[in-house]
Amino acid sequence: MEIKRPYLLFLGDAADPLAAKVAQGIKDWRPENAMAQFRLEGCKADLGLEDMTIEEAVKAGCKTMVIGVANRGGVISDAWIRVLIDALENGLDLAAGLHNKLADIPELVAIADRLGRQLFDVRHPTEIYPVASGKNRTGKRLLPVGTDCSCGKMYTALALEKEMRARGMKADFRATGQTGILITGSGVSIDAVAADFISGSVETISPDNDSDHWDLIEGQGSLYHASFAGVTAGLIHGAQADALILCHEPTRTHMRGLPEYPIPSMQAVMDLALHMAQLTNKEAKFVGICVNTSNLSDEDAEKFMRETEEKFGLPCVDPVRNGVGRIVDVLQ
Amino acid sequence: MEIKRPYLLFLGDAADPLAAKVAQGIKDWRPENAMAQFRLEGCKADLGLEDMTIEEAVKAGCKTMVIGVANRGGVISDAWIRVLIDALENGLDLAAGLHNKLADIPELVAIADRLGRQLFDVRHPTEIYPVASGKNRTGKRLLPVGTDCSCGKMYTALALEKEMRARGMKADFRATGQTGILITGSGVSIDAVAADFISGSVETISPDNDSDHWDLIEGQGSLYHASFAGVTAGLIHGAQADALILCHEPTRTHMRGLPEYPIPSMQAVMDLALHMAQLTNKEAKFVGICVNTSNLSDEDAEKFMRETEEKFGLPCVDPVRNGVGRIVDVLQ
Repeated sequence: MEIKRPYLLFLGDAADPLAAKVAQGIKDWRPENAMAQFRLEGCKADLGLEDMTIEEAVKAGCKTMVIGVANRGGVISDAWIRVLIDALENGLDLAAGLHNKLADIPELVAIADRLGRQLFDVRHPTEIYPVASGKNRTGKRLLPVGTDCSCGKMYTALALEKEMRARGMKADFRATGQTGILITGSGVSIDAVAADFISGSVETISPDNDSDHWDLIEGQGSLYHASFAGVTAGLIHGAQADALILCHEPTRTHMRGLPEYPIPSMQAVMDLALHMAQLTNKEAKFVGICVNTSNLSDEDAEKFMRETEEKFGLPCVDPVRNGVGRIVDVLQ
Repeated sequence: MEIKRPYLLFLGDAADPLAAKVAQGIKDWRPENAMAQFRLEGCKADLGLEDMTIEEAVKAGCKTMVIGVANRGGVISDAWIRVLIDALENGLDLAAGLHNKLADIPELVAIADRLGRQLFDVRHPTEIYPVASGKNRTGKRLLPVGTDCSCGKMYTALALEKEMRARGMKADFRATGQTGILITGSGVSIDAVAADFISGSVETISPDNDSDHWDLIEGQGSLYHASFAGVTAGLIHGAQADALILCHEPTRTHMRGLPEYPIPSMQAVMDLALHMAQLTNKEAKFVGICVNTSNLSDEDAEKFMRETEEKFGLPCVDPVRNGVGRIVDVLQ
């Protein structure tokens, strides 16, 4: 899956800025991909990009219209479809990470087929992946693992990529979820891959590379999440990470979506993740801890990170508050 | 997925008895499902069942023709297709666990649609499964876990079901792979389920039950298999097993399909599986060890099992040589 760039970011009739968080992520992490925005009447989001018509965007060099906004109630409205058709007819591909597929809208499929455009439903992999070989690959790899879902793993990997590139290191973020794929234009939505091929898909998106090159592989789920641990286990084996980072959100009271399941201790997650990671890379080790302290006061955040750093003997940062420079220091 | 029974077992032009091992499994474990066999010229397999024409099988009460034989080179031959069409036209559904899908043969689909027959490709789930809830379910559950793939997990679960039923206990084998599904007529091919729904599919096929009822859930893969551990991890969480059984093949020198990966120790597999199982069922424990000693002499087999039993303090049997009665004793 390789989405052509740069993008015209479709913000639709976003109810608020949060509804356009995928588009915001693209703009934050790949500003070179985010050429312009397209908004419908009543749109409450604004990325601060130039508003372009489809014709203007094509002239400016846009290749793909990316739906960077959640659709209300899961319905792709007629107003949206009219815009999407217009984009196809003017020469753009379409890409989306919606639960509904673009490929399930016959009108879009017919026009795309006729004009030779591509429809990317990044949540629904169409590739065939191999069974993982478990063979060692050249190059370096880093994988964030979490105490829970949605605790900052994608942000951590993207922040590391940015910091490493700023230092002139060779580094590529490797997306394993739909937002990450839309940000970078490639990757695999591993939670939608058939179970036998989880590890194989990760091997595929993180191939052999230069010995001083780092793949920053997007983490998913948690080994202690009763719904999604299979995804995480397969990801850990396929990643063959040299470096692991623990991601944690300290105010959460239970696993996301599972009120009966408490958050595991950081130590338990590190022990289990390291044990599993060492099956496919004996050199795997933890190199840092990233904490999402957005729900803590400055004082509490600092205290939590100081204590965590002392307890584990690893650099502990909030990537948003502190950046990830101290972790990259270790990797350099 | 619920395949109508009993079956007419299609043995095709099996090159040898091993090619018909799926049909043999159905006959061994569910003789009441195996009403008759259908063979083409040159078939080298014989289950010892009555050979029936399709018309005879329909009259005798057969509901489904099951393809119980591997297709040579992955090709579904014209000779096969003629028989399958004949079966549909005479009132039978079709079921297969082939890599190729019956549903990809337009002729069969057209006839099935016209006549209201069903095509079951058990290797390719069509159901939508929920994300696992992790909620405790009533009833008892047992799951075999292996040091490797293909070391006797299905056989163990089926042998336990047979022994428990013979003792008047309430017990159901729950299939998680294509052979198991064809044997019992229902289940889920979890290795083909989208990664997010591995645990959820297992919760679905093993629902709430009587407090003295045992689900014997078919195991898959190994937590130490670099290709398939994601499947196993999700299966362990979804199973919520009260009782675990370790399955092992003592002469294997490396993980199946992975020459670079040694077989883990039995202790390591038990430690990791128990740790993961206890996330969704705190009462989980190992109750026995099943060894596939088919490659050992009587003497070596006995010695290995005696030493293993002493080392782990659990009943250790080869289900084929010894039966699983000593393990059922523990469960009773």
